[in-house]
Amino acid sequence: MFQSFDVTARPDQGPPRLAMLRSHMTAEGLSGFLVPRADAHQGEYVAAHDERLAWLTGFTGSAGFCAALQTVAGVFIDGRYRTQVKTQVAPLFTPVPWPEKSLGTWLKEQLPEGGLIGFDPWLHTVGQLETLRGELDGSGIEMRATANLIDRIWSDQPAPPMAIARIHPLEFAGESHGAKRARLAAELAAAGQNAAIITLPDSLCWLLNIRGSDIPRNPIAQGFAVLHQDGTVDLFMAAKKLVEVGDHLGAEVTCRAPESFLDFLGNLQGPVRIDKATVPVIVAEHLGDRAVWGSDPCALPKARKNDAEIAGAAAAHLRDGAAVVELLAWLDAQAPGSLTETQVVGKLETCRRQDNALRDISFETIAGTGPNGAIMHYRVTTETDSRLEEGHLLVLDSGGQYLDGTTDITRTIAIGIPPREAAQAFTRVLQGMIAMSRLRWPVGLAGRDIEAIGRLPLWLAGQDFDHGLGHGVGAYLSVHEGPQRLSRISHVPLEPGMILSNEPGYYREGAFGIRIENLIVVEEAKALPGGDAERAMLSWRTLTFVPIDRRLIVAEMLSAAEIDWLDTYHREVREKIAPRLSPAAKTWLDAATAPI
Amino acid sequence: MFQSFDVTARPDQGPPRLAMLRSHMTAEGLSGFLVPRADAHQGEYVAAHDERLAWLTGFTGSAGFCAALQTVAGVFIDGRYRTQVKTQVAPLFTPVPWPEKSLGTWLKEQLPEGGLIGFDPWLHTVGQLETLRGELDGSGIEMRATANLIDRIWSDQPAPPMAIARIHPLEFAGESHGAKRARLAAELAAAGQNAAIITLPDSLCWLLNIRGSDIPRNPIAQGFAVLHQDGTVDLFMAAKKLVEVGDHLGAEVTCRAPESFLDFLGNLQGPVRIDKATVPVIVAEHLGDRAVWGSDPCALPKARKNDAEIAGAAAAHLRDGAAVVELLAWLDAQAPGSLTETQVVGKLETCRRQDNALRDISFETIAGTGPNGAIMHYRVTTETDSRLEEGHLLVLDSGGQYLDGTTDITRTIAIGIPPREAAQAFTRVLQGMIAMSRLRWPVGLAGRDIEAIGRLPLWLAGQDFDHGLGHGVGAYLSVHEGPQRLSRISHVPLEPGMILSNEPGYYREGAFGIRIENLIVVEEAKALPGGDAERAMLSWRTLTFVPIDRRLIVAEMLSAAEIDWLDTYHREVREKIAPRLSPAAKTWLDAATAPI
Repeated sequence: MFQSFDVTARPDQGPPRLAMLRSHMTAEGLSGFLVPRADAHQGEYVAAHDERLAWLTGFTGSAGFCAALQTVAGVFIDGRYRTQVKTQVAPLFTPVPWPEKSLGTWLKEQLPEGGLIGFDPWLHTVGQLETLRGELDGSGIEMRATANLIDRIWSDQPAPPMAIARIHPLEFAGESHGAKRARLAAELAAAGQNAAIITLPDSLCWLLNIRGSDIPRNPIAQGFAVLHQDGTVDLFMAAKKLVEVGDHLGAEVTCRAPESFLDFLGNLQGPVRIDKATVPVIVAEHLGDRAVWGSDPCALPKARKNDAEIAGAAAAHLRDGAAVVELLAWLDAQAPGSLTETQVVGKLETCRRQDNALRDISFETIAGTGPNGAIMHYRVTTETDSRLEEGHLLVLDSGGQYLDGTTDITRTIAIGIPPREAAQAFTRVLQGMIAMSRLRWPVGLAGRDIEAIGRLPLWLAGQDFDHGLGHGVGAYLSVHEGPQRLSRISHVPLEPGMILSNEPGYYREGAFGIRIENLIVVEEAKALPGGDAERAMLSWRTLTFVPIDRRLIVAEMLSAAEIDWLDTYHREVREKIAPRLSPAAKTWLDAATAPI
Repeated sequence: MFQSFDVTARPDQGPPRLAMLRSHMTAEGLSGFLVPRADAHQGEYVAAHDERLAWLTGFTGSAGFCAALQTVAGVFIDGRYRTQVKTQVAPLFTPVPWPEKSLGTWLKEQLPEGGLIGFDPWLHTVGQLETLRGELDGSGIEMRATANLIDRIWSDQPAPPMAIARIHPLEFAGESHGAKRARLAAELAAAGQNAAIITLPDSLCWLLNIRGSDIPRNPIAQGFAVLHQDGTVDLFMAAKKLVEVGDHLGAEVTCRAPESFLDFLGNLQGPVRIDKATVPVIVAEHLGDRAVWGSDPCALPKARKNDAEIAGAAAAHLRDGAAVVELLAWLDAQAPGSLTETQVVGKLETCRRQDNALRDISFETIAGTGPNGAIMHYRVTTETDSRLEEGHLLVLDSGGQYLDGTTDITRTIAIGIPPREAAQAFTRVLQGMIAMSRLRWPVGLAGRDIEAIGRLPLWLAGQDFDHGLGHGVGAYLSVHEGPQRLSRISHVPLEPGMILSNEPGYYREGAFGIRIENLIVVEEAKALPGGDAERAMLSWRTLTFVPIDRRLIVAEMLSAAEIDWLDTYHREVREKIAPRLSPAAKTWLDAATAPI
């Protein structure tokens, strides 16, 4: 379960595999074949069985796809992976900047005479295919659903995951699955829909109050479900995964073999709600005109955490915060130049494991020192492992999975004396993070409407960063959860109970990186004297309690209100975390949380 | 041309007219008929000929519509007009809060058995009808295009406007209409479109470098145009309006009788681009499947002002600023309690007319003192005219139309000693206005992405206001111009040359109103030392130069950066405006622009 630092890139494997794929394409009469990173559940992490993109190309990023044609093979990667892809894939593969270049545009450029492109209809969503077909309209290029050609040539492909699912106790879930099913079913009935298809494992696990371990770092069980208008559920999941949850699921949940899913859809009465953004093409094709478009019925209810889930998250954050403080105290006792990134990652995981409550880390820890900190999604390997040198900033982004909640925290730590320019940028990042933490805003706004607040101090200095300000976080589920986001692409209104990250950053290529991240939960704002009496507003409650490195703060840049926020935060950190610490860490914390 | 303060509401006129309309509905076999505020050009102001909604109902707001059924007549009005509508329409009419209640929802409630609703296909856009038909799907209610029943019963309906169009000199337009036509035609050709239909008069006037006076406060000439892929234009406008611009239009613009427009469309080769949001239903129907959806090709080019237009706007603002300063100096010399709102409006218009360059005011001046200031779109009449009393705040929102530019400015002025609470709110509004003025932001963002910056100081105090932060402004055209906006509903990226208003406000019902408004223009931001070298950013240049009332500022609430902005702004006001003033106003300005 410990994080591995193996070098997974094997560029030399790609070319022979691509040649094999091409010969199968020829046999099928295809001009090309699409190999996405995604599995049928569109998760951010995939099982070893589904690592087709990495197997074919060597590229191991968390998003992207390969469009393999006979003479060229494009590897589509977003801004995070422009550097990484170059070291991971053979020259035979052509990196394509995406989404700047769309797949449709690229295909039209490569195949001016038209052609036939194969794809696995389990691995692409209805929305993706619709967009692509729109782009290809009139080009003479056609898309055809086929068997998965990678599965055909991947001789030692691991088996699909088959981990045993467990009950997620009511104490942490806060609502029985019967109540959830009834609530969502009433909404289907009101919309005149007979059923809804659930293909996202975190939705399915939330709905049925189960958890699993089919996927690293994500406590989910993979499967499909049909929620009916009467509140009953048909669950398509291998029987051997369900041995421990049969009684828990009860009579209103019928467990069926995954192989029977498509036939079942064939006999389902419409209208059936499916989510274009996540449902595989093959599901929509089996439903035909019985399908109606809508969002995953679990998405918003899952995002709005109930009191038990929020209390659980708060408890998990205190436990996790103590582990991170132990790490920080230990780290500060080491001389600059004496540690490497992997040693920090290992020690941090050890600190987290001191508490038996840890089920897993919630994602691969990012520990980037000096120039490595400027690589936003850096994953340290034995090859890149770097020493924490005097004058470095260390970006440490990590989290834990606990039964009562999922954590995600980033701190940036000064190794020795930080460069002035880095401290100034750190202070601006902190100002943005504080501004978002202090925000109150009128009900009805989405992440897009308020994200600028967290960037403003950087903007005024001519600086910015190229990732969203924050993402949703699950309740002992995915550390990246939709639909709530603090991002330019999020149009979903924020609602009480939604947990998000607040993580502005700044990245100077080749020099240093900065990111500060707390998790925060939306709540109804308390009325203020002199405020508008009738105006409902929302505000944040902070869940994360770990000190922010005072050595990186240029105090004279802060306003009185910002200093007040920071000193109050640090006092709370001390009060909440100190009782959980070793004596050495307690002493360290006292100093680390002194007023500015 | 002077603003009138007549009471235009005549609630008693409505009932007999409604009865007449209903008998014609019966004769046509209709269950209802729609009477919008809009004309065929979807302008914010309409000609007397098109004031059908006011004629029928008495309601004179700038947006809304009546749905007249046999037993009920709904008057749909937005948040700005909830109070006004009650005083203007007879009890026989039912105000409906809109858009909270959609027309489709309301019709389904009123006509559960279904029915047939007539509408004039010139007065409703394709988009409106599409939305409505979507809402009515399955309800048994059908929409039918008919003759306009109001025109049939309105015996003394004024004739359509027939004002003479004039050349808009190249000096102010900055680009010949030939160059504009060629530029836009190339875009049509690239999109594979044969032609585009232009129905917005400000688009048409911008494209052909003409101006008119068909509509009060808007220097536009009403007509329709077809822009062809080869850059030629067919212009459908009454010949007698074009007597002065024939040579200017030249051989590539063919003037045709407005009556021939629909037949011309019938013979036009497709594809023809039309804008769903603005094109009348009848236009789309005549094009049938030759129509393709797109935006008005003039919309974005018109919004991106060129150097001549920006220089013209700057010059117009200095001229207009001097007039407003003369008014403010005069106003300050009058004792509290000695003036009424209409006197201020009259004097302001006189100050503006001192300079012969004024062509018109750009909208009806809003002058609301004390509680009237809290009515966001207050238009003073002889009935509401109120005295400026000690302790009042006066909201004064006005603008001028000049050949070289359109202005729009709001100042809030203390009459005597302001209440503390009002001054605190004023300071917050000012802080928001300064924050937006000082903003730099990365290229690509829309109004929606940055609007929060101008609201933040109010939000933190539990306050907000219920209008957008800003709207686009034309170049000697409409004072409200799309598509650029600083608003939650604006997804159009801001681009250099776009002129917008920056006008946060605060309104305490029954007590006071506050609004501060400058016009600002987007420009490329200058690089900052230490800023990201590769990151293109935008910033604002301020066009409006008129002092902000220092008596309403609580100085200790301002940061050093805010005070610096304000003092710098006031120094610029003094430098730019003082040379244009009377001696008395100059003395007043020196004091009004002293450092905080």
